[in-house]
Amino acid sequence: MTNTQVKLAARPVGNPKDTDFSIEQTAMPTIHEGEVLIKTKYISLDPAMRGWMNDGKSYIKPIQIGEVFRAGTAGQIVESNNLDFAVGDYVTGGWGVQEYGVSAGKDLVKVDTNIAPLTTYLATLGMPGLTAYFGILNTGMPKEGETVVVSGASGAVGSVVGQIAKIKGCKVVGIAGDQEKCDYCVNELGFDACINYKTEDVKKALRIACPEGIDIYFDNVGGEILDIVLGQIRLKARIVICGAISQYNNTEPVKGPSNYLSLLVNRAKMEGIVVFDNAANYGKATVEMARWINEGKLHSKVHIEKGIKNFLPTLMMLFSGKNFGKLVLEVE
Amino acid sequence: MTNTQVKLAARPVGNPKDTDFSIEQTAMPTIHEGEVLIKTKYISLDPAMRGWMNDGKSYIKPIQIGEVFRAGTAGQIVESNNLDFAVGDYVTGGWGVQEYGVSAGKDLVKVDTNIAPLTTYLATLGMPGLTAYFGILNTGMPKEGETVVVSGASGAVGSVVGQIAKIKGCKVVGIAGDQEKCDYCVNELGFDACINYKTEDVKKALRIACPEGIDIYFDNVGGEILDIVLGQIRLKARIVICGAISQYNNTEPVKGPSNYLSLLVNRAKMEGIVVFDNAANYGKATVEMARWINEGKLHSKVHIEKGIKNFLPTLMMLFSGKNFGKLVLEVE
Repeated sequence: MTNTQVKLAARPVGNPKDTDFSIEQTAMPTIHEGEVLIKTKYISLDPAMRGWMNDGKSYIKPIQIGEVFRAGTAGQIVESNNLDFAVGDYVTGGWGVQEYGVSAGKDLVKVDTNIAPLTTYLATLGMPGLTAYFGILNTGMPKEGETVVVSGASGAVGSVVGQIAKIKGCKVVGIAGDQEKCDYCVNELGFDACINYKTEDVKKALRIACPEGIDIYFDNVGGEILDIVLGQIRLKARIVICGAISQYNNTEPVKGPSNYLSLLVNRAKMEGIVVFDNAANYGKATVEMARWINEGKLHSKVHIEKGIKNFLPTLMMLFSGKNFGKLVLEVE
Repeated sequence: MTNTQVKLAARPVGNPKDTDFSIEQTAMPTIHEGEVLIKTKYISLDPAMRGWMNDGKSYIKPIQIGEVFRAGTAGQIVESNNLDFAVGDYVTGGWGVQEYGVSAGKDLVKVDTNIAPLTTYLATLGMPGLTAYFGILNTGMPKEGETVVVSGASGAVGSVVGQIAKIKGCKVVGIAGDQEKCDYCVNELGFDACINYKTEDVKKALRIACPEGIDIYFDNVGGEILDIVLGQIRLKARIVICGAISQYNNTEPVKGPSNYLSLLVNRAKMEGIVVFDNAANYGKATVEMARWINEGKLHSKVHIEKGIKNFLPTLMMLFSGKNFGKLVLEVE
């Protein structure tokens, strides 16, 4: 028996390509005292992965060349030398893009698949959901009646941001790149409006959807849309910088927001967030979101692709916007 | 007797020029019940004035074509129909670029020239000082031992920001465009270092001056320096956007900060400030700053030019950096 592993082979310039990865068959790992062996079921695909491939200082250290590609993972314990985990337990963690992972348990979370399907623990009840939860609540600080705009609206983070803002009594306007995604946001997630940035004039559409201006913008995309929103914020607006997917594969310098002086005019703030800073409160947040799921207030959609060898084409779906819902790779 | 008034004649494109202003001799104003007539002594010249000349939504309405140019002013009551003001009283206000102003008193502040010279009430004890005070304390939130960088370091706002940060126990690094200004910041204001952006490589010089990174950046200039600083901020850094003097006369779009994603990497925030929001606390702030002046902890320098007809060339000194200290125009 062997373990299929996807490793980083080279640092990509622009779009990652086949030769930036190596897919290797390695010996099945053996576990030591206190460790468990986990069979990977699902691998989380997230825009942040593109950043982890670059060298240089960031909020997390880059994946090293030759290292198993870092990823959020969900799977089942198949061997255990750790009293906290029994064979058959479902867990999430970050053992990376490989068929089998070994862990001493500290970085694993046991999850209950009776409460929600395993994929939900990589989505709404995992990092994307927690990113949304802390970002919109602690940094966005939504107040009833305020107008919230979120880009990447149908995505793993954006869809949760918008629904939490609705729970808090806000008006929510999404921005997405596909009519089906926009319809989903409005019809199934309860957003007040959703703008298709590929077919609509975003500037005009936002003026119509938010005639009184924007109080909170939760930004997953950066680029031109950030600039347009900056031009339409209200006094004391909050801009939550969660990501900038439009810029991640750029070979040119990142487009800075020309309209940033709108922050001055409107005494507004723009603040970056990283979910890891809230680790101490993950438990409380997960409980609250699980309750919202059970109450039917928090919906999610998972997009499943199959086969660990399809890691790269699946990852690239995030940047072309071809996925619809939280993207995961099922390891068969 | 007539009143010399400087009015906005046209909205400038790029650098303001003579034809954007008209200098008029108008009839001496007469005052009604409750009003006072003030003889202007000093007119405050501030970078923000350039913004007031543009049309479009901002934090304050634009100066209208044909209107007396808006300005902070200091002068002496020469006629009074208001029991709160006696002839001879010194006051500050905003009656604009003219030899004589009329006011019903509500927008005037009586000042004591025994405590500080009249010009100080347009500088450290006026809008620039208050901008610095609230910006650095409420938005910058300096903690002892932190590293604070301020651009426009020898200016009316920057010099006060740096000195308050020193009072709060921070390490302070200024950025200015002239060696004499830099020497002043270090030798007379007590800054730990000051970088001459015209002769030094700012990126390298900042790395040397702030080897552990920057906790607070108080930005008066925008442009490339903002981007360089963004590349060197620390975790949880605060960037106070007070102005962007490098961009005010641009005919091209404002340069947005390409490095804004450093806000995400460092969970940092960038926030715009406008002094007017703190009006309720001006009194308390002025008392504290007057105390610091008396204790020798807060120094200032005033640059006086003369003659109301020199309004435009004096204003332009701000953008070429030719003034050294708070720039005021003395009305003779």
